[in-house]
Amino acid sequence: MFDLAFHVNNETKLPYYRQLYWFIRTEIEAGRIAVGTKLPSVRELATSLQISKTTVESAYQQLVAEGYITSTSRTGFFSLPPEETFVRPSRTQTLTAHSGADETATCEIDFHPAHTDTSQFPKTTWRKLFNEVLNNMDDETLQFGNPLGEWGLRQQIAQYLQQSRGVRCTSDQIVIGNGLHSSIQLLWQLLNNDRTMLAMEDPGYTKVRSWFHRLSVPVIPIEVEDDGLSVKGLQESQANLAYVTPSHQFPNGMVMSYTKRKQLLQWASVRNRFILEDDYDGEFRYTEKPIPSLQGLDMNDTVVYIGTFSKSLSSALRMNYMVLPIQLLNRLMDLRLPLEPAVSRILQAVMERFMESGHWETHLRRMRRVYRKKHEVLIESLRAEFGSSIVLKGYGAGLHVSVTLVDHPRKEVELIESAESVGVGVYNFPQSREHTDSYSPTLYLGFGGLTPEQIRDGVHRLRRVWL
Amino acid sequence: MFDLAFHVNNETKLPYYRQLYWFIRTEIEAGRIAVGTKLPSVRELATSLQISKTTVESAYQQLVAEGYITSTSRTGFFSLPPEETFVRPSRTQTLTAHSGADETATCEIDFHPAHTDTSQFPKTTWRKLFNEVLNNMDDETLQFGNPLGEWGLRQQIAQYLQQSRGVRCTSDQIVIGNGLHSSIQLLWQLLNNDRTMLAMEDPGYTKVRSWFHRLSVPVIPIEVEDDGLSVKGLQESQANLAYVTPSHQFPNGMVMSYTKRKQLLQWASVRNRFILEDDYDGEFRYTEKPIPSLQGLDMNDTVVYIGTFSKSLSSALRMNYMVLPIQLLNRLMDLRLPLEPAVSRILQAVMERFMESGHWETHLRRMRRVYRKKHEVLIESLRAEFGSSIVLKGYGAGLHVSVTLVDHPRKEVELIESAESVGVGVYNFPQSREHTDSYSPTLYLGFGGLTPEQIRDGVHRLRRVWL
Repeated sequence: MFDLAFHVNNETKLPYYRQLYWFIRTEIEAGRIAVGTKLPSVRELATSLQISKTTVESAYQQLVAEGYITSTSRTGFFSLPPEETFVRPSRTQTLTAHSGADETATCEIDFHPAHTDTSQFPKTTWRKLFNEVLNNMDDETLQFGNPLGEWGLRQQIAQYLQQSRGVRCTSDQIVIGNGLHSSIQLLWQLLNNDRTMLAMEDPGYTKVRSWFHRLSVPVIPIEVEDDGLSVKGLQESQANLAYVTPSHQFPNGMVMSYTKRKQLLQWASVRNRFILEDDYDGEFRYTEKPIPSLQGLDMNDTVVYIGTFSKSLSSALRMNYMVLPIQLLNRLMDLRLPLEPAVSRILQAVMERFMESGHWETHLRRMRRVYRKKHEVLIESLRAEFGSSIVLKGYGAGLHVSVTLVDHPRKEVELIESAESVGVGVYNFPQSREHTDSYSPTLYLGFGGLTPEQIRDGVHRLRRVWL
Repeated sequence: MFDLAFHVNNETKLPYYRQLYWFIRTEIEAGRIAVGTKLPSVRELATSLQISKTTVESAYQQLVAEGYITSTSRTGFFSLPPEETFVRPSRTQTLTAHSGADETATCEIDFHPAHTDTSQFPKTTWRKLFNEVLNNMDDETLQFGNPLGEWGLRQQIAQYLQQSRGVRCTSDQIVIGNGLHSSIQLLWQLLNNDRTMLAMEDPGYTKVRSWFHRLSVPVIPIEVEDDGLSVKGLQESQANLAYVTPSHQFPNGMVMSYTKRKQLLQWASVRNRFILEDDYDGEFRYTEKPIPSLQGLDMNDTVVYIGTFSKSLSSALRMNYMVLPIQLLNRLMDLRLPLEPAVSRILQAVMERFMESGHWETHLRRMRRVYRKKHEVLIESLRAEFGSSIVLKGYGAGLHVSVTLVDHPRKEVELIESAESVGVGVYNFPQSREHTDSYSPTLYLGFGGLTPEQIRDGVHRLRRVWL
């Protein structure tokens, strides 16, 4: 049995299993545990480290879930190759989170772009509404529901989208899903006859690329310019479906200009072309009024709009929504797909009441205030600590910003490692095309899951190791 | 505008919108509203019938959801062809539920095979556990969860399946899904390289056939014999995946014999062959001890076991589970699919506590008692009313039975219509192969959603119109 040089650290607040998890993950990513290595059994490791079996099990399971190790159940746990681990627990799973040299690095301060402020989750209201729903549910409501989602919730969402996001739709265009993946699966079935070819923003949301790829849809990377996707690049491609994040480009964060929006819609006005607008954090805009959706500008019934409750409420809910263009709604009816409801009818009912009663608007206003404050602290701290040695992009909206270190000699991976050595997690996002011009490392910092104090502290630590 | 001869009936407990829904559905199914007919607008109909717009909207939406009509939003509502409507709100959507001649037929007593006794849903316990979960959740728990399902719940399910269903598995083989469809989607991705060809029970669960069909998997119908799927038919086919319901064949209800189970496993022992065991209501067996799962007999790691909480708890929960063979679990790891969690982490946590605390076992015992009683009443009523003019099959387990009228001159569709004329819903299930031998009409009666009194009353009404 090979030896794991792990020591429990009692000075951090991280539970033991998370420490062990981070330790093994770091070892694998750094290549110190070779691919295919058999790890000690749960019992062996618990004994040798003098920690409980449950602790080891929890750590191993987390590593299995995230694809760092595999379990064959009969013969034990084995390490897997470090790159492109198969499941990261977040929207930004495909961010490459390299770990550092410090063996007990635990990322006390994690600027993960997908983390949200869960301390704000309206627990009391949800408890109350859940009780109400269970008390008032008639027996029929506990039977199978509407496959497209409960009518009442779809009405609430349609109303919200009309008022707040400028989406033009009726309730029957709304389809409730349990995540972006489910929406894409359904969309694929609706588009399938069209020999779909997907244009993706580059850099863009790798998970989406990967899902389409698995569905055998060819994916064409299109350059992202300062005001959004290159429409010229799109026009020159063979694509008939364009995935875009116009409100806050993922990951770079810019807002797509009005001119470009019009050009994009013009491109889509040709028969059988569609735009997939992922408005993943469009609720959060701090400097100006929220920019209305691309869908709201569309006169040709070509935009599929997708939104989520993950950012504004909790990603643990697994609830999102898609607004189908009328032509795809008709196709859905024609195809008579044997659909099943994606989300528990009970949770849908709670969400409907949450929206109907005005709690949703109140909650959104509160979250905007909370995130605006964090956003302000992050920008101020970065400017105060780094001054002109960095260029900030993608701020003013969403839950993350991009930080480019001007003419900095070190590579992104090295910067991530040195950040981790002081307990700070930052992320990079490799572009699929080659860097042709002079290289400046760019890192992504999410602020949603951190307190203002943690943000200040984290940025301060970054300066110590980066400058 | 064409005229709808609908009159509100104040003597039934059905809400107006349901009455209107049933009326229009009946008109469409009977062909009295031709395919493609433009229906009156919501406003027009509400005015002419002197009912509220909301009532009309609700009825229309139900009809849209179930595929009876389509809405183009801009130009109004249109009727669709009656057969194979695209979404029926139940597991048995593909049952053909023809409606009768009586224009206000409302199916007061609906023997729908997919209905369950929702009055038994443990509301108080669920309220309590939901409150506990929200109170005790740390902030991390409101972030994205494990894509395969929460570890604690998977442990509970593994334990339950081992003890009660004889399934041999560890927690990491369990994948939580939001329904059979999601399990099949994932399975398809895992099998995809194997040039999958599916063998389906015939008659069988049409929805499953349709899902695989949409995924471009060839489907081969295999005859169902008195003790289950014809293994000879399977051996002669090119199939490498067999979908079976061995605990209670859907829809015929027989239990697969031990001999046949062994033969089936023998068939699957060839490399790259798999069995998909859908144990959709295996918890409910009334005459003998529950039959253990096929998976539990498997020595070759070839059975994919799928179970659900829909029958035992509520189909509104949208929660099921799949047990992957080790070889497919390894493939899942190797493929590094970008998975997302299927079910809200909050609901998973509630379900985990529900199982862990013993409430699940208590609930199952109660449901077995409740359903055994209903089952007994149905069988007794049928025998008392019909005597030797019927043959009963598929009883002793599950939530529905099959009733064959011996040498009866009328067609199934006619029997369904006359049942609806006295307010009783029964279902048929067309086989894909031709009836070669002498024809006897067979109808399916579910008892889960009815009270013993309703069951007696319903069977009595059936005799009045059938004999």
